[in-house]
Amino acid sequence: MTLLVAGWVAIDEIETPFAKVEDSLGGSATCAAMAAALFTDVRLLAAVGEDFPAHHRRTLESVARLDLGGLTVEGPRTSRWGGRYHYDLNTRDTLYTELGVNAAWRPELPAGWEDSTTAFLAAGDPLMQRVLMGALPGAKATMVDTIKFYIDGMPGELRETMGAADFVTVNESEAREIAGTPSIAKAARALLAGGPKGVIVKLGEYGAAFVSESDYFVAPGYPLEEVVDPTGAGDAFAGGFLGYLDSVPAITPAEIRKAVIYGSTVASFDVEGFGPSRLLTLTRAEVEARYGEFRRLTHFEAGE
Amino acid sequence: MTLLVAGWVAIDEIETPFAKVEDSLGGSATCAAMAAALFTDVRLLAAVGEDFPAHHRRTLESVARLDLGGLTVEGPRTSRWGGRYHYDLNTRDTLYTELGVNAAWRPELPAGWEDSTTAFLAAGDPLMQRVLMGALPGAKATMVDTIKFYIDGMPGELRETMGAADFVTVNESEAREIAGTPSIAKAARALLAGGPKGVIVKLGEYGAAFVSESDYFVAPGYPLEEVVDPTGAGDAFAGGFLGYLDSVPAITPAEIRKAVIYGSTVASFDVEGFGPSRLLTLTRAEVEARYGEFRRLTHFEAGE
Repeated sequence: MTLLVAGWVAIDEIETPFAKVEDSLGGSATCAAMAAALFTDVRLLAAVGEDFPAHHRRTLESVARLDLGGLTVEGPRTSRWGGRYHYDLNTRDTLYTELGVNAAWRPELPAGWEDSTTAFLAAGDPLMQRVLMGALPGAKATMVDTIKFYIDGMPGELRETMGAADFVTVNESEAREIAGTPSIAKAARALLAGGPKGVIVKLGEYGAAFVSESDYFVAPGYPLEEVVDPTGAGDAFAGGFLGYLDSVPAITPAEIRKAVIYGSTVASFDVEGFGPSRLLTLTRAEVEARYGEFRRLTHFEAGE
Repeated sequence: MTLLVAGWVAIDEIETPFAKVEDSLGGSATCAAMAAALFTDVRLLAAVGEDFPAHHRRTLESVARLDLGGLTVEGPRTSRWGGRYHYDLNTRDTLYTELGVNAAWRPELPAGWEDSTTAFLAAGDPLMQRVLMGALPGAKATMVDTIKFYIDGMPGELRETMGAADFVTVNESEAREIAGTPSIAKAARALLAGGPKGVIVKLGEYGAAFVSESDYFVAPGYPLEEVVDPTGAGDAFAGGFLGYLDSVPAITPAEIRKAVIYGSTVASFDVEGFGPSRLLTLTRAEVEARYGEFRRLTHFEAGE
């Protein structure tokens, strides 16, 4: 079983009310790949620039079960993102986005990677996402994420791509924008009508909801007392979710519920450190312990 | 077993993006009492004015298990509140608050009501809340709610009142303001340190969290496709929560978790109609059915 993660590897500059870091290893594919590698073998497909620091490459190389055969140098500049979080850490301003090599990147699947059993297409050009899904006809599950840039700029392409995926993951505000309704339940149903088998609406600190034709499941946010940096939490969720599903023999409704909790668990660790730093030291035993805490957080006895 | 509910009975004017109602039966005690009466016998202690419409009194009289022996006329004007909800129904502007009779109301317990087994002190003067709790020394559980007006205006009195209560219920934004921290978990712990046995943080459409020295429990929001009017949802939650606890032989951690779900269930029905209208037709069987749905929404299998 092998999960393909395609998307951005970038360099972030992050400012929170409490601290500031420059030159942080970032990008949607980075966090997702690190999170997924806790559960299964992962292949990373992404482009960086000639300026990509050697220490960031060494960090990626240090991740067990992560194959960097698809991490290529495609031009002078690595993509860069700068963001500043507000006091409650729930909202942020993007200070800048430099596309760098990702402005013109056309991902190509390395030889032999056609046998990837699952694929996560992190936020990116929806046409490219669809091309990659098409190159993996045998995959048992594909998942697509997106950002406001593509919702606004390429709504038709995005709709087609989401319809071709097994799972779609969006933020609450994105779901509302795409579906044109303030109700999360209604927005998820509208997205579902477009073709995917399941829709995950990420609710930030309030958790996540999974919606399919026959199921509705809500995972709470883990009650952290200290959040250091929410950057990458959504991608860590996606990596944990699909990484877990890649590792099981059959994707059943019960396994999907467990995958939502594994995704929530990994995301809750991710926000405990700047960038993906906490994921680098995270162990499967720590994940299992917190998974159990999620059960204690939400389970209750039957009624009358 | 009898629950005392003390607070406001008022007349509301509510505007949502979809409709507007004037002369709606409102007030924190109204919704809480109606919700609680689904589970136990309820005594309503509140003041109205000479202008209180006969049809609203008849509505209250129609609620089974609700004793109006403490609903007294205390002056010319009933309290009035006007509010307008924004597009997503999560935020609202208060257009006006007319204190009316509640400006000078000093609640007095009717003879014989000292044997109430539980009490909900809906948002009001914290000193009055404490006086009422003191008049019920044998109560097995008391719960206090508040609003920004008292958090800002009487912080010392409020702290003392909350410390004397068994349960405290606050909105997320109120919890953050009282505790001075953006973390819900930290804010709840800070409130708990003040003396109550349990703190409920209401998260609006995202549900509610219950925190005690030994427990942390999160109930999700019920995924409604149509919300008509969120007014009174927090009070309906409180009524369902404490009404259920009043009805059980012993208040255990497991019963508290069930009470949080019963509160969430009743609140989810409350928002399906304007004011407390949906509560008037709600049956215990409907409540039990949705309680079961909450289990299906949140339960999942153990991990590895």
